Amino acid sequence: MAKDKPTPRPRAETPKGFRDYFGAEVTARKAMLDKIAEVYHRYGFDPLETSAVETVEALGKFLPDVDRPNEGVFGWQDEDADWLALRYDLTAPLARVAAQYRNELPSPYRRYAMGPVWRNEKPGPGRFRQFYQCDADTVGSASVAADAEICAMLSDALEIVGIPRGDYVVRVNNRKVLNGVMEVAGVLDPTDPDRFSHERGVVLRAIDKIDRLGEDGVMSLLTSGRKDESGDFTAGAGLTSHQAATVMTFVSAPRAIARAIAEIEVTGPSHPMFEASLSPHFRNATTIGYLRSIVGLSQIGRDGLDELETIATLLNAQGYGPDRIVIDPGVVRGLGYYTGPVYEAELTFEILDEKGRKRSFGSVAGGGRYDDLVKRFTGQAVPATGVSIGVDRLLAALAAKGRLAADTAGPVVVTVMDRDRMADYMGMVGELRSAGIRAEVYLGNPKQFGNQLKYADKRQSPIAVIQGGNEAEKGVVILKDLILGAKIAQSATLEEWKDQPAQVEVPRGDLVAAVRKMLGQ
Amino acid sequence: MAKDKPTPRPRAETPKGFRDYFGAEVTARKAMLDKIAEVYHRYGFDPLETSAVETVEALGKFLPDVDRPNEGVFGWQDEDADWLALRYDLTAPLARVAAQYRNELPSPYRRYAMGPVWRNEKPGPGRFRQFYQCDADTVGSASVAADAEICAMLSDALEIVGIPRGDYVVRVNNRKVLNGVMEVAGVLDPTDPDRFSHERGVVLRAIDKIDRLGEDGVMSLLTSGRKDESGDFTAGAGLTSHQAATVMTFVSAPRAIARAIAEIEVTGPSHPMFEASLSPHFRNATTIGYLRSIVGLSQIGRDGLDELETIATLLNAQGYGPDRIVIDPGVVRGLGYYTGPVYEAELTFEILDEKGRKRSFGSVAGGGRYDDLVKRFTGQAVPATGVSIGVDRLLAALAAKGRLAADTAGPVVVTVMDRDRMADYMGMVGELRSAGIRAEVYLGNPKQFGNQLKYADKRQSPIAVIQGGNEAEKGVVILKDLILGAKIAQSATLEEWKDQPAQVEVPRGDLVAAVRKMLGQ
Repeated sequence: MAKDKPTPRPRAETPKGFRDYFGAEVTARKAMLDKIAEVYHRYGFDPLETSAVETVEALGKFLPDVDRPNEGVFGWQDEDADWLALRYDLTAPLARVAAQYRNELPSPYRRYAMGPVWRNEKPGPGRFRQFYQCDADTVGSASVAADAEICAMLSDALEIVGIPRGDYVVRVNNRKVLNGVMEVAGVLDPTDPDRFSHERGVVLRAIDKIDRLGEDGVMSLLTSGRKDESGDFTAGAGLTSHQAATVMTFVSAPRAIARAIAEIEVTGPSHPMFEASLSPHFRNATTIGYLRSIVGLSQIGRDGLDELETIATLLNAQGYGPDRIVIDPGVVRGLGYYTGPVYEAELTFEILDEKGRKRSFGSVAGGGRYDDLVKRFTGQAVPATGVSIGVDRLLAALAAKGRLAADTAGPVVVTVMDRDRMADYMGMVGELRSAGIRAEVYLGNPKQFGNQLKYADKRQSPIAVIQGGNEAEKGVVILKDLILGAKIAQSATLEEWKDQPAQVEVPRGDLVAAVRKMLGQ
Repeated sequence: MAKDKPTPRPRAETPKGFRDYFGAEVTARKAMLDKIAEVYHRYGFDPLETSAVETVEALGKFLPDVDRPNEGVFGWQDEDADWLALRYDLTAPLARVAAQYRNELPSPYRRYAMGPVWRNEKPGPGRFRQFYQCDADTVGSASVAADAEICAMLSDALEIVGIPRGDYVVRVNNRKVLNGVMEVAGVLDPTDPDRFSHERGVVLRAIDKIDRLGEDGVMSLLTSGRKDESGDFTAGAGLTSHQAATVMTFVSAPRAIARAIAEIEVTGPSHPMFEASLSPHFRNATTIGYLRSIVGLSQIGRDGLDELETIATLLNAQGYGPDRIVIDPGVVRGLGYYTGPVYEAELTFEILDEKGRKRSFGSVAGGGRYDDLVKRFTGQAVPATGVSIGVDRLLAALAAKGRLAADTAGPVVVTVMDRDRMADYMGMVGELRSAGIRAEVYLGNPKQFGNQLKYADKRQSPIAVIQGGNEAEKGVVILKDLILGAKIAQSATLEEWKDQPAQVEVPRGDLVAAVRKMLGQ
C-alpha cells in the first residue's frame, strides 16, 4: 500500500476561550459543589442532569442577562436537518424538562442542577466559553414561601462552603415594586400593558446604571437624554421632571434608608425611633414603609410590598434576620427578566482589585421569580422561582478568604534505587495504599536519582521512601521528610541543618507506622 | 410596536439519542464515581477536567474501537473558520494536554478524568449519544510496572464500589504476543513492518470473532475465506493451513489452558503436576509456558511474554493473585489499537438476558498501552497506558447485584392546613433542617389536603407533619408514618389496621425528637 504523505502536526491547544482544570482546581470546585448539594438535598431538592445538547427550538433565544441579548450558542445541524446546540444555562433545559415530564414530576418540583454551560461569546480575561453553573429552582409554586425558601437555602449554602455570617448578605427586591414605581411615574398603564414599553425599557436601563453614572446621570437618562464624555448622546425616556423625581426617589431609596438608620445609631437613646430600631424587624419595616410612601397609589406596587413583607416574616420565623437576608430596593440586576421577587447574594468583605484598591467583593449569586417558564411549550403558565450561584466567583471568594478546600497533598513517593527490585518497591506502595495512605512508586526512568527527587518535589510529595542495596541487606528503609527538608533549605543556617536531619532510617517492617508518624497522622 | 405574530410552540423533547437523569440516577452515579476517585487518588492519580470542546485537528480521527472506525463527532465551524467538536472520549484530550503542558506536568503524569463524552452515532436502545467515561492513565512511563499498577487499581476500584472479590476478574494479555504469533505464522516481518499489514488486519478481525463463529469459522477466515448463512462471502487472509494452525493454537489457548488445569483438579494428588498446581503462580506460569511454546521463535513474542511475566510478579508482590488478576490470551478486544499490555475487567456472575437465559455479565472496563499518544503533536514518542471504566455498564452491574447506593429517601413533608400560618410551618421545616433532617413545606395550592398527601407519596416522603387549627390550639403536631402506612394499606387486615395507627400526636416542642424516632435515627 502507498504510504500516506506526511500531514502537518496538529496544534496542541484548547480552542480559544476554553480551558482545562488540573488537580486541586478540580477537587476544590467539587468539594464546594458537594457541600452546596448537601444543603439543597436537605431542603428537599432533587438533582437533575439534563443532556448538554438541546434542540435550538427547545432552548429558545432567551439569555437571562438583559445586557447581552444577542449572545449566541454553539450550534450545528444534525442528520435530519434539525438544529442542535449546547445549553447556555441550566434554566432553559429545566423549562424543557418541566414541560416534557409534566405528568410524571411531583408538583411543586424542587430541583437542583450543577454542570457546565457553553456560550458562544467573545472570550476575554477570566471570561470563558465553558463555565459551571449551580442552580436550584422550584417549579409549580405561586407562593412567595418558595422565594423565601430559596433565600434561606442560599444563605445556608454560602455558610456551609465557608463564607461566615456577616461576610455576606442576601438582598431581596420585587419586580412588582418597580412596576408600581413605573405606574406612579406614569409609564405603566395596567389596562394596556404594552403602552410605554419603550419608555420603561429606557428607565430600566437607566436605573441599572446608578453605580456608574450617579444620580445626575440617571436623572438625565430619565428625562431629556445624556451626552457622555466622548460626546455620544443617549436618548432619554422623556419623563417630566415630576415623573423622573418619583423614579429617583425609588433609585435613591437604599441610600435614604441607610442614612435614616445611621442617624438613629449616631443619635442613640435620645432619638425618638431608638427603641423601635432595636427590633430585628426594624430595618425591613423601615424599608417597606419608605417604599409604600412611593408606590402606595399603585395596586401592583402594594402587591409587591405585601409579598416582600411576607417573605421577611417567613424568614424571621426560621431565624433568618436582616443580618443575613434583607429587603433592599437596590437590587436592580435582572429586574427586566424576572416577574416577582428577585434576590442577590453579595459578599461584603473587601478585597484588593487589580489596581490595589480596596473594594467589596460583590455579587456571587442571583435569582428570582419567572412565571413564563413552561408556557412556551405547553401554553400553560407555570410559576417558578430559582437561584443560580456563580461557581467561579464563589470559588474566587473562598480563595480570597483562604477557605478553599485545598487538598494539594501529593503522594508518598517510593523511589527506585535498583530497577530489578521493582517488586519490592511495589510491595511497599501496596502496603501504604492498603493503609489508606496516598502513595506511588516512581515509574519514570530510574537511572538519575536526582530526577526522582525532582519528581517528588513537583508532586508536592510529603515523603520520599528510599531503599538501596545496603538498606535492603540491613532490612531498613530511609524516609526523607520533604516538607521539613524544604523548610530547612529555605530558612536554616548550616548549623541547624546539621542538627536536624530531615531523614530517618526505620526497619522495613515499620514502614507504614513510620510514614504515618511523619505525616502527623 | 407591532406585536410578533404567534410562532408554533417548540417541542419539549431531548434531541434524538440524548436523555436526562433524575434524582437517584444522578446520586447513584455520583456515589460510584466518588468512590472510584477515592481509589485513584490513593494511587497518586490527579484529577484533570478538560474542556468538552476541542479543535477537530487536536481530536484527530481516531476512535479507539476498531469496529467503528467511521463514527463521527458533533462538530461546527467557529467564527475563525476553525472546526470545533465535542470530545468523543477522554484519551484524545489527554493526548492534547500531555503535549500542550509537557514542560509543566510531572513526568510520569498520572491523571484520572470523569465526565461525559459525545458520539455522533446512530442511537439505539440503551445506546446514547452522550454518556459518561471514567479513565485513569499514566503518561510517560515505559515500565510495565505502570500497566501492573493500573490493573491493581482497577481491581480495587471494582471492589470499593461493591463488586465482591470472586465476582470479577481482570484479564491481561499483550499485543506483542499476538505480534509474535503473526511473525511465527509468517505474516509479520520485523525488518519490514508494513509488509503483510493487510493480512494482519484480516487475521485480527478473524480472531476477534471466535465467540461468534467458533474455531471452524475463524479457520476459514484465516485461510480461503468464509460464506455466511445469507450467502455473503468474506475474503480470507490467505494463510496456508500450517500458518493458520499456528494462529489457531493461540486462539484456542484459553480453552486449552482451562482444560489442562481442570484435568489436574479432577485427577487430584495423583496427577504429576498436582503439587505445583497449588502455588498461586501456577495458573499464570502455565499460561506463559503454553504461549512460549507457540511464539518462542519470535523475539517480539518473547518480549511480550517477559512483560506478562513481570506484570504477574509485580502484582503477586502486592497480593493480587490470579483470583483477581490473571494472564489470559483470550483478551483480544482492542488488540488492534494498543501496542503492549492490554487488560479487561470482566464480571463473572450471571444475570438473565432479555430472553431470560443466564449469561455472564461480561466486560465493564478495558485498557492497555498505547505509545503514540503525544507523537501526533510533538513528533516525540511518549509511552502511556490507561484504563476506561464503562460507567453505565458498571452501574447496571451494581443494580443487578442490588448494590446501588440508592439514596431515594424523600423529605419529611410539612403539610399546610391553614394558609395563613405558613410562618409556623416554615418554622417547623427550619427546625428539622437545622437538625440535619431532609424536610420541606408543601408549596403547592394547599386547598385540597388530599393533593398534599399524594405529593408526599410521589416524593417517597417517610413522614407527613400535620397541624390544623385544633392541633395548634393544643400545642401539638400529628406525625403520619407514610412508610408504615403504605405497608398497612398493602397487607394488613382491618383489625390489624385499627391496632396499629400509623400516626401519632406529639407536643410541638418534641417535633424534631419525634421525627428522629420515627425515622429510626
